[in-house]
Amino acid sequence: MTRLSYVNGNYCEHKDSFVHIEDRGYQFADGVYEVFGIINKKIVDYDGHISRLFRSLKEVRMSSPINKSSYYFHIKRLIKINRIVDGLIYLQITRGVAERDFKFPKQVRPSLVMIAKSNTLDSYDTVFKSGIKIKLIKDLRWKRVDIKTINLLAPVLAKQEAADHNCQEAWLIDEDGFVTEGSSSTAWILKKNTLYTTPLSNSILNGITRQSLIKGLNKNKLKLIEKKFNIKDIKESDEAFITSATQYVMPVVSVDNLKIGNGKIGKYASIFRKAYMEAIKLS
Amino acid sequence: MTRLSYVNGNYCEHKDSFVHIEDRGYQFADGVYEVFGIINKKIVDYDGHISRLFRSLKEVRMSSPINKSSYYFHIKRLIKINRIVDGLIYLQITRGVAERDFKFPKQVRPSLVMIAKSNTLDSYDTVFKSGIKIKLIKDLRWKRVDIKTINLLAPVLAKQEAADHNCQEAWLIDEDGFVTEGSSSTAWILKKNTLYTTPLSNSILNGITRQSLIKGLNKNKLKLIEKKFNIKDIKESDEAFITSATQYVMPVVSVDNLKIGNGKIGKYASIFRKAYMEAIKLS
Repeated sequence: MTRLSYVNGNYCEHKDSFVHIEDRGYQFADGVYEVFGIINKKIVDYDGHISRLFRSLKEVRMSSPINKSSYYFHIKRLIKINRIVDGLIYLQITRGVAERDFKFPKQVRPSLVMIAKSNTLDSYDTVFKSGIKIKLIKDLRWKRVDIKTINLLAPVLAKQEAADHNCQEAWLIDEDGFVTEGSSSTAWILKKNTLYTTPLSNSILNGITRQSLIKGLNKNKLKLIEKKFNIKDIKESDEAFITSATQYVMPVVSVDNLKIGNGKIGKYASIFRKAYMEAIKLS
Repeated sequence: MTRLSYVNGNYCEHKDSFVHIEDRGYQFADGVYEVFGIINKKIVDYDGHISRLFRSLKEVRMSSPINKSSYYFHIKRLIKINRIVDGLIYLQITRGVAERDFKFPKQVRPSLVMIAKSNTLDSYDTVFKSGIKIKLIKDLRWKRVDIKTINLLAPVLAKQEAADHNCQEAWLIDEDGFVTEGSSSTAWILKKNTLYTTPLSNSILNGITRQSLIKGLNKNKLKLIEKKFNIKDIKESDEAFITSATQYVMPVVSVDNLKIGNGKIGKYASIFRKAYMEAIKLS
């Protein structure tokens, strides 16, 4: 089967999907993106992701290259022609192609690229059962990570440093020693039957998976406190988790080689996963 | 004449110069760059720029896709085939093309792109004579701007905000109210016959033009202090400047609408420009 990607209005063979070397995404990281999870051919929380995409565009002063309603059409079409059952759609918008100059080009059409990828839920299950390990790494990112931009070199370096230590994710530590979030996920700890996660600000992304899990928790009457936590809190925690559009709810079994609970996934992991799966909207 | 760019080993028509949509430069800003000034067909301070390029590669843990000695050959060839007299060569290296994943791909060849551009020294002279205006803007960049990476969205937004205020450059202000540097240049003020510029750290780029101007100043026995300056210092300054690989030494006539000196270019502008032009090495 030929893998097809969407590039500026065309469906192209993935291997032949190109952008110009003066696309501002390539020279300046001048762009935004979203990742849509796909479960059983349906898009997870489409409305939340598309709203955040339009907020990101507004914050970096870019316009959408297509009508808001067209995104749904193209994502659904990509799912169909690539025969995705479970997986993801990666979508990126950049300011477009122009002679290199830091300031915005006067007349330019934004570039839009979409890539489909299969990812079995079985492989998610396998990771879920053993849980993941976390490395704490200094947060070197810029000061507007609430915007989902492709300005991602700091999280790339953090994720690799975590991998070097045999960890699957980095939790980023601010100057005061508090966890902001994961390099590509939201961070959570459970301490004395209370779930903690960092409150919204310019220092973290407003995760769509975070939103749905919070909705799911409310339904289940579990206690949640949006409050920053540090290494001391992590040491006192009974369980820990990350959430993201592609990892959904994923239990954490160690942080900087310190075992969480007994070093195996705890009882709330499945409860939160179920609460999340019940809270999402598939379309 | 056909404009040619260098793309991964090939000389391509500029309009047909493309990279894959999964080049990590496009998805993650996972790359570094240099801009080489060209004066009279010769490269300005080649050794300084190439050394900094290799330092940048090392800091982000990337390897060079070609031998160090080959860069000179390709830059000279681009100058020749594009008939550049005065102008610049833009050079970018990214970690290469791989299926999207934050951590480094296991086997990947870095991408290398070079673009040639003409820029008459006459146009530089015109701007020099009237000087440029500066807008002060909060420094939102990541914490390793000493590495010359393409993680450039914060300076892009700052430069545009400056342009919105009819200014040609933004000076970025840290949390304590001090100027770090310009969005794409080094910042300098002259106060009581002493020249001030921010000392080297992870918060500024080690400018090659900065290095050459300092060399030129030493020869001329002018006093330089590497010390951070704030709005109070700017108000007390007699002259101000920016330096960069494409603007060389450029006088500043106002900062946030506050006139520097009498609001016209001062007497040291030409002295510094001359000192810089004498200090550079052309090859």
